[in-house]
Amino acid sequence: MIFRMLSLWLLSLSLALAEAPITLVLHGGAGVGKSTLTAEREAECRQVLEEALRAGHAVLKAGGSSQEAVQTTVVILEDSPLFNAGRGAVLTAAGTVEMDASIMVGATGQAGAVAGVQGVRNPVRLAEKVMLKTPHVLMTGRGAEELAREEKLRFEEPEWFITPAQRARLERVKKQTGSVSSPSDLSLRMGTVGAVALDAAGNLAAATSTGGLVGKRAGRVGDSPLIGAGTYAENGICAVSCTGHGEFFIRNLVAYDVAARMKYAGTGLAEAAEEIVNDKLKKLDARGGLIAVDAKGNISTPFNSDGMFRAWMGPDGLAHVAIFNE
Amino acid sequence: MIFRMLSLWLLSLSLALAEAPITLVLHGGAGVGKSTLTAEREAECRQVLEEALRAGHAVLKAGGSSQEAVQTTVVILEDSPLFNAGRGAVLTAAGTVEMDASIMVGATGQAGAVAGVQGVRNPVRLAEKVMLKTPHVLMTGRGAEELAREEKLRFEEPEWFITPAQRARLERVKKQTGSVSSPSDLSLRMGTVGAVALDAAGNLAAATSTGGLVGKRAGRVGDSPLIGAGTYAENGICAVSCTGHGEFFIRNLVAYDVAARMKYAGTGLAEAAEEIVNDKLKKLDARGGLIAVDAKGNISTPFNSDGMFRAWMGPDGLAHVAIFNE
Repeated sequence: MIFRMLSLWLLSLSLALAEAPITLVLHGGAGVGKSTLTAEREAECRQVLEEALRAGHAVLKAGGSSQEAVQTTVVILEDSPLFNAGRGAVLTAAGTVEMDASIMVGATGQAGAVAGVQGVRNPVRLAEKVMLKTPHVLMTGRGAEELAREEKLRFEEPEWFITPAQRARLERVKKQTGSVSSPSDLSLRMGTVGAVALDAAGNLAAATSTGGLVGKRAGRVGDSPLIGAGTYAENGICAVSCTGHGEFFIRNLVAYDVAARMKYAGTGLAEAAEEIVNDKLKKLDARGGLIAVDAKGNISTPFNSDGMFRAWMGPDGLAHVAIFNE
Repeated sequence: MIFRMLSLWLLSLSLALAEAPITLVLHGGAGVGKSTLTAEREAECRQVLEEALRAGHAVLKAGGSSQEAVQTTVVILEDSPLFNAGRGAVLTAAGTVEMDASIMVGATGQAGAVAGVQGVRNPVRLAEKVMLKTPHVLMTGRGAEELAREEKLRFEEPEWFITPAQRARLERVKKQTGSVSSPSDLSLRMGTVGAVALDAAGNLAAATSTGGLVGKRAGRVGDSPLIGAGTYAENGICAVSCTGHGEFFIRNLVAYDVAARMKYAGTGLAEAAEEIVNDKLKKLDARGGLIAVDAKGNISTPFNSDGMFRAWMGPDGLAHVAIFNE
């Protein structure tokens, strides 16, 4: 224990003396199938992923914080109708849009999250307000929306969120599963966006945002707004954002479990992330993936579904965008 | 890793061959001060704690499951107006009662939780329904209340929950802190109930229930309904229920952190629990405590506040009830 604490302290010291290798990783959700993605849509998705990647990385390059970088990235993904968060969020069984988001900063261990909010254009901005403007971590529903109004965050009409594609998606799911509460055919039903970053000062941050499961029951909360389940960041260790079948990510505390294996078992980032996604979760038949970055700028993006929209950029400024195993 | 897995497997095997030492531990919240507890009220509290303890232990003794035992215990504590859960739950700033609860069973890793529910007599029963009757883990507000109606759970009028003592408590907090969103004087403001159990079959379970913080903002969710923060159970490892300043317990994943230290660092239950409560949380100035039982029936009940209502009973059937360091 003493050696581990000493090595963590030495690591922090070395990070403080040298600039950390700025790194940004993002995801746009797991579960996409090769057969369901047209070439045209794939090109559109890749373009938005790269745009979000470059915008977040530019924040880091200009000396901005990892907190600001993950915000910038996630806001762009929320504003795109292509991903299940903000605009383009999937519909509940009742045909409404209920969104969840969270953010955590490793430097302070502070976190903010919202669940089941309607009408707020960028739920990740509201999560940040919960962190900065209240003594709380998680706020839900109308209470959270009140805070958004107080903080003058932008609201949009239902029409802004509800795209024709999402309306059709809900109908398809209702037809295929008979009941919308059935967990079957999750590839049609899930999706999340998220980002993790390491800034030049060595600070880690993570953020996640989602509309949840297509056809979910009103009031259902997935892993995205839950610290330790869908999102986690701790300086000196790692930052993690998850996507997948949320209930399994909650019960297995997936985001924190990556950090816990690193802290307590001395496991490396890639091994810890792989073990959870491709061993533990796979055995439970839980589909999904995660993105993670450690304090040295190592990254890991394992997934056990057909595909996971993802992109990453290190200190070299080269953009990498991927969807399937490529 | 292989040795640890082997030893866990041997442990499970030995537990399967011999009956596990049935154990029940409960808490009625941390933060109680010696000066604020009259002798009369202390006697009343001790009586209810012992009643809940004996009822839960009787379930285990009759061969019942740890899941049933923690339910039985928590329902009695919820029905008592003396503790901050169910009847006797504290009031929000708006004068309403918004309750949270969760349950997790180690045998299956299944979990259920509710946040921000009104009118449901026993939120812990609703948490169990979420686990058993839906594919979800966490449900909030009206969506959760709908499920309670479908499952024919008992509802009560606001008058049932709102005791004159809680009305006076909200007024006191409003006067003392000026603003009810101030986190100061938490000893007046917090409280939770919970139970952990090991049954004869070696299965662990944990449950937690609360009304949250006195004068909390509408929509605020604490650690009690969050798996891994306020509640966690994993067969072969431990079951944990927390109480205290919820935001710190969320950010530090306190309940799961006990299990993670045991699994990945090989730390014993008592050492893991003590390190978190009396070192990590104390350094953060985070007040509270937890109760925990491991797969061998070892228990730990650390707290860093003035007092923590707690009680425990092992295979010998002797009742232990404590409030302060005694």
